[in-house]
Amino acid sequence: MKVVPSENDPQNHLLIGVNRDIRGKVASMSAKISKGADAFLFREYFYVGIFLVVFAILLLVLLGLITKDWTRTGFTVFSFLLGSVTSILSGFVGMRIATYSNSRTCIKAASNLSEGFDVAFKAGMVMGFFLVSAGIIVLFMLIYIVKSNYSMDQASTMFEAIAGYGLGGSTVAMFGRVGGGIYTKAADVGADLVGKVEKMMSEDDPRNPATIADNVGDNVGDIAGMGADLFGSFAESSCAAMVVASSSDSIGLSAYWPALLFPLALSSSGILVSLVTSFVATHLMPVKNETDIEPSLKRQIGVSTLLMTPVVFIICYFFLPHDPFYIGGKTVKYWYIFFCVACGLWSGMAIGYITEYYTSHAWSPVREVADSCKTGAATNIIFGMALGFKSVIIPVFCIALTIYVSYSLAGMYGIAVAALGILSTLPTSLAIDGYGPICDNAGGIAEMSGMAPEVRVRTDALDAAGNTTAAVGKGFAIGSAALVSLALFGAFVTIVKVKWPVDHQAVDLLQPFEFAGLLVGAMLPYWFSAMTMKSVGIAAKGMVEEVRRQFTEKPEIAHENGPDPDYDRCITISTDHALREMVAPGALVLLSPLICGFFFGTHALAGLLAGSLVSGVQIAISSANMGGAWDNAKKYIEANVGKKTEMHKAAVIGDTVGDPLKDTSGPSLNILIKLMAIISVVLGPALQDFDKGLLEKWFA
Amino acid sequence: MKVVPSENDPQNHLLIGVNRDIRGKVASMSAKISKGADAFLFREYFYVGIFLVVFAILLLVLLGLITKDWTRTGFTVFSFLLGSVTSILSGFVGMRIATYSNSRTCIKAASNLSEGFDVAFKAGMVMGFFLVSAGIIVLFMLIYIVKSNYSMDQASTMFEAIAGYGLGGSTVAMFGRVGGGIYTKAADVGADLVGKVEKMMSEDDPRNPATIADNVGDNVGDIAGMGADLFGSFAESSCAAMVVASSSDSIGLSAYWPALLFPLALSSSGILVSLVTSFVATHLMPVKNETDIEPSLKRQIGVSTLLMTPVVFIICYFFLPHDPFYIGGKTVKYWYIFFCVACGLWSGMAIGYITEYYTSHAWSPVREVADSCKTGAATNIIFGMALGFKSVIIPVFCIALTIYVSYSLAGMYGIAVAALGILSTLPTSLAIDGYGPICDNAGGIAEMSGMAPEVRVRTDALDAAGNTTAAVGKGFAIGSAALVSLALFGAFVTIVKVKWPVDHQAVDLLQPFEFAGLLVGAMLPYWFSAMTMKSVGIAAKGMVEEVRRQFTEKPEIAHENGPDPDYDRCITISTDHALREMVAPGALVLLSPLICGFFFGTHALAGLLAGSLVSGVQIAISSANMGGAWDNAKKYIEANVGKKTEMHKAAVIGDTVGDPLKDTSGPSLNILIKLMAIISVVLGPALQDFDKGLLEKWFA
Repeated sequence: MKVVPSENDPQNHLLIGVNRDIRGKVASMSAKISKGADAFLFREYFYVGIFLVVFAILLLVLLGLITKDWTRTGFTVFSFLLGSVTSILSGFVGMRIATYSNSRTCIKAASNLSEGFDVAFKAGMVMGFFLVSAGIIVLFMLIYIVKSNYSMDQASTMFEAIAGYGLGGSTVAMFGRVGGGIYTKAADVGADLVGKVEKMMSEDDPRNPATIADNVGDNVGDIAGMGADLFGSFAESSCAAMVVASSSDSIGLSAYWPALLFPLALSSSGILVSLVTSFVATHLMPVKNETDIEPSLKRQIGVSTLLMTPVVFIICYFFLPHDPFYIGGKTVKYWYIFFCVACGLWSGMAIGYITEYYTSHAWSPVREVADSCKTGAATNIIFGMALGFKSVIIPVFCIALTIYVSYSLAGMYGIAVAALGILSTLPTSLAIDGYGPICDNAGGIAEMSGMAPEVRVRTDALDAAGNTTAAVGKGFAIGSAALVSLALFGAFVTIVKVKWPVDHQAVDLLQPFEFAGLLVGAMLPYWFSAMTMKSVGIAAKGMVEEVRRQFTEKPEIAHENGPDPDYDRCITISTDHALREMVAPGALVLLSPLICGFFFGTHALAGLLAGSLVSGVQIAISSANMGGAWDNAKKYIEANVGKKTEMHKAAVIGDTVGDPLKDTSGPSLNILIKLMAIISVVLGPALQDFDKGLLEKWFA
Repeated sequence: MKVVPSENDPQNHLLIGVNRDIRGKVASMSAKISKGADAFLFREYFYVGIFLVVFAILLLVLLGLITKDWTRTGFTVFSFLLGSVTSILSGFVGMRIATYSNSRTCIKAASNLSEGFDVAFKAGMVMGFFLVSAGIIVLFMLIYIVKSNYSMDQASTMFEAIAGYGLGGSTVAMFGRVGGGIYTKAADVGADLVGKVEKMMSEDDPRNPATIADNVGDNVGDIAGMGADLFGSFAESSCAAMVVASSSDSIGLSAYWPALLFPLALSSSGILVSLVTSFVATHLMPVKNETDIEPSLKRQIGVSTLLMTPVVFIICYFFLPHDPFYIGGKTVKYWYIFFCVACGLWSGMAIGYITEYYTSHAWSPVREVADSCKTGAATNIIFGMALGFKSVIIPVFCIALTIYVSYSLAGMYGIAVAALGILSTLPTSLAIDGYGPICDNAGGIAEMSGMAPEVRVRTDALDAAGNTTAAVGKGFAIGSAALVSLALFGAFVTIVKVKWPVDHQAVDLLQPFEFAGLLVGAMLPYWFSAMTMKSVGIAAKGMVEEVRRQFTEKPEIAHENGPDPDYDRCITISTDHALREMVAPGALVLLSPLICGFFFGTHALAGLLAGSLVSGVQIAISSANMGGAWDNAKKYIEANVGKKTEMHKAAVIGDTVGDPLKDTSGPSLNILIKLMAIISVVLGPALQDFDKGLLEKWFA
């Protein structure tokens, strides 16, 4: 690992104040984090790999035996495995880029805030470009295979099979999000409860055995998990658009080759727009001092949305037929589609900015929460929860409006392209998301390698902006997940042809199975959240015990300049717990649609999907914003009232409660609603005959 | 007020140990509580009365001008006002019974635990009998008016007009629940934060200025509010059954007079069953010592359900036609209806017992939460939230099963009678619900009038059981609210004839307005909770300031045997805040269906109702159980670890967070979902032509 530039390096002047000894420490700490993250990902992917093979066989058997269409089944499983591999690769590459850039951000920040920002931001950008490009290339390949080998009549079912690609991506993403989420919060809470609270050490103190695990957690949870999640959304919305476009409700478009490539063209142009947008942050309006950081990141969202809007119109103009065509059950013109995409794009921006309003301490909501700490932790929690609940209102109206507009204009196809609209500036969102954990790690490395306190101040400033953008990224992720799931819900209904008495396709809430399904579906996010929150508690408890054990058995590690604690044990404990605890929530998500579909039928399953979608969106948004608000209320009190006060104590309790909400259970819900929908789409052909499910068949 | 029995009174021996001086104090404290509760209720009912008149005029204008059917409109408004008056009366009588019995419970408990239990339990019973009887008598009168004046052809729409009765009941209930909920928690939190935390006084110390307001709160929130809520459920489910039975989808039943009386017969028989059940607690297996109290109350639920089951069959046998008849869109036999009612009845019991499992510290879930206090308040909150989320699972499955079974057997009529099934043992539930606050007050009076500490121990034992039964009552209330709302949803759809392209009635989730409505509807409970939680915070802050002011300006009130603090000021502050803060949530609940229905149409409104129903159920159950669990975890720690420990401190924070959740926002959600549904039913005739709403009309 080459962190020390040569004597002739023109950038060497940046390293003034960073002596060789410290540079060595930086390298060693960064290597430890990188090794820990690798170790976790390899073990996680090992188990996920086994699971994927088993699941692929299950898919093969279920789909193949029931539909007897082995070509389609084979292609579904092939797409599934390809999607999984792409997602694994995306998570891994993202994580590698992050662990590669954290030490560099730290060293650059040592000499210049602006350059530190640039390194972290560009690292996030590279991650975003890689993920989206990889997805587009593989999807293009799959479409090309279908196009070259099948006539347009056969192609329709084969396009449905490509949905396997989305399923693969989301399955890996689920384990990444849940496993990574448990890992990062177990390490974080464990490190805090013993190191900070009991031993009065500062954050990232190298004497704390859990400190490396904590920094590893940022990478495996926020980078690999988030990357896989958004990659899944991207793959699924593209698949949903294709399934709806190629279904029997749509004619005229599937025969038109450029139109099939429309989703990919949209995402590809998003890469270019994001590249141009990034120049605004790196060249046009570079970060000069601390107050520039947050505006600079926020500007990215607005600029990319502004630039993307005309580009969307151009893509619509060139890739869609100019005669009216029939799609998603409606006759549409090409500029209808433009409005659908634009609606998604602009809602995404609105959700981003509203999230920022509710989670940044620049605005009154977080300041009110901070103020409530005056009367103690209880009022802090009550006000934080009220804030989280309230923050749901506008995003839900935005999503509902987008649904209404795009649904009315172009049916389910409109929803699918609106989801693509939110995700069209994905590279920018990923860059902003990736930026946070990289700076967090940079700060950790600065502290652990004993750099001057001023460096820590700079990395803290970089990191603080990252907290807000992390919340914005989560709002973005859940908004897109909602639209993607709805599009998949539409694709599912199209495939299984849910009909009610007459021959009209309808998911009718006046039917018993549909309504019971809706109610149970609305419960699933609660069940899932209960599981993941408790998992974090259990894993954190394991970590607390290990850290206490090390301090008791080897008290000399707590001394200044004492021997290194056993970091590896802590990493192993977090890894083991995360892998063990991700099984039950994973099973809940994967088995619910399977059991519901086969035993209670497609009507109940349609209700279940709708219920989990509308309820999951609310908990996901409120959890993420509650957590973000408590975190920033604490930061606000630290800056304005001071640490070691009663108010700060109350704020720390809120922050700790928010941790599993914002980093584990909340973001995992995106995957819950998406994965349940895509698994239903993929199993759709096998479920066609299970109108009322096995139960009714047995009793009949 | 006659609390001192004469010398010849055979019960006089019970008063050994209670000297005349203390008896006088008991009478004076009880009078203060009674006066405070009266003052709040009178002021509340004054404002509610003005609102009711305005709302009645609005109904008259809206319904009359749009439908031009002035007879029906007039009858709707008449029923509405009658329902409001009955509900106001029920709340007031219940509260009077409670304030009349609290001192008696205290004095009886002074000599004998068993007799104390009897007084409190019988007071609750009287309240239950009064509420249900009043409802039945008024409803019978309304039905009789229709029957004597109209032919069966006209009667159908007039029966729809009786829904106004349910609307009146629920509107008053909403203000009772929200206003009472804010009152009680503001006083509770205010009394605790200054008196207990800052001044180190014990609970109910007479030197604390907010202590009377705290005791008043138990009466206006838990007695008047809960009574009005359950009365509303009862009135609404009876109305829903009648609307569905008299609609065009049902023939054969509305012509059959006994069948129309079926809902009332069911509830009337429930009074008898509850009376018989109460003998088990008062005579057959009386309470002898502390450990008998909780089992005795729990036994009531089981025994009443067991006894009610054959009675339901008898009622079905004698009141329903024996030939198959057509109702709710299905051809049914009389014993189908028995199964629907029984399904509701037994789910109610199941939900009650499951709630007990999750909120009583006799079982592992609460003990786990208590154990998590070892690592501080944050883990306490996380584990409590996880428990609340988890406790939703089985109740939702119970409700979903009931929906499925009764829907399949008898359509929407099945749902309506299943709701009547849950509520058939309402007098028993109300007795159990009323028991808790009465004992709570009795304890307060014992403390405030300086009775021997052993008396307080006894009233505490009585009260502890009341905490668990309060949670059970909330589970019960939300379970019935869910079924009632669904039945009303069915009645609404029947009235406005929501149809999708063809002439089949369907609420189709594949339509843009329906799905957008569903999503927004699922958000409303969050918005409402955010409002009510914040209201409690604001009102509590006002109370804290007033109590602090009194201690600062007149420090001698804090001395032993000092002058009385100004209790009345605190009562006024709680009253003012509660009345002011109940406006916004009330407006949200009443205006949402109005705006949605007229501007976006009945399709969007159908979605909105379904969304708020499925999402509200989850938050209501989880909030109530979270709060109950934190409360009892604190009690468990007090008993097993001790007060003044770090664990107890952490537990108190959880308890305070739970207070607004379990007593304000959670239970108010029942009303949200019921009221939105019934208002849609009542406005149904006016909404028939607003298929797509004004917005679409304007744009078209």
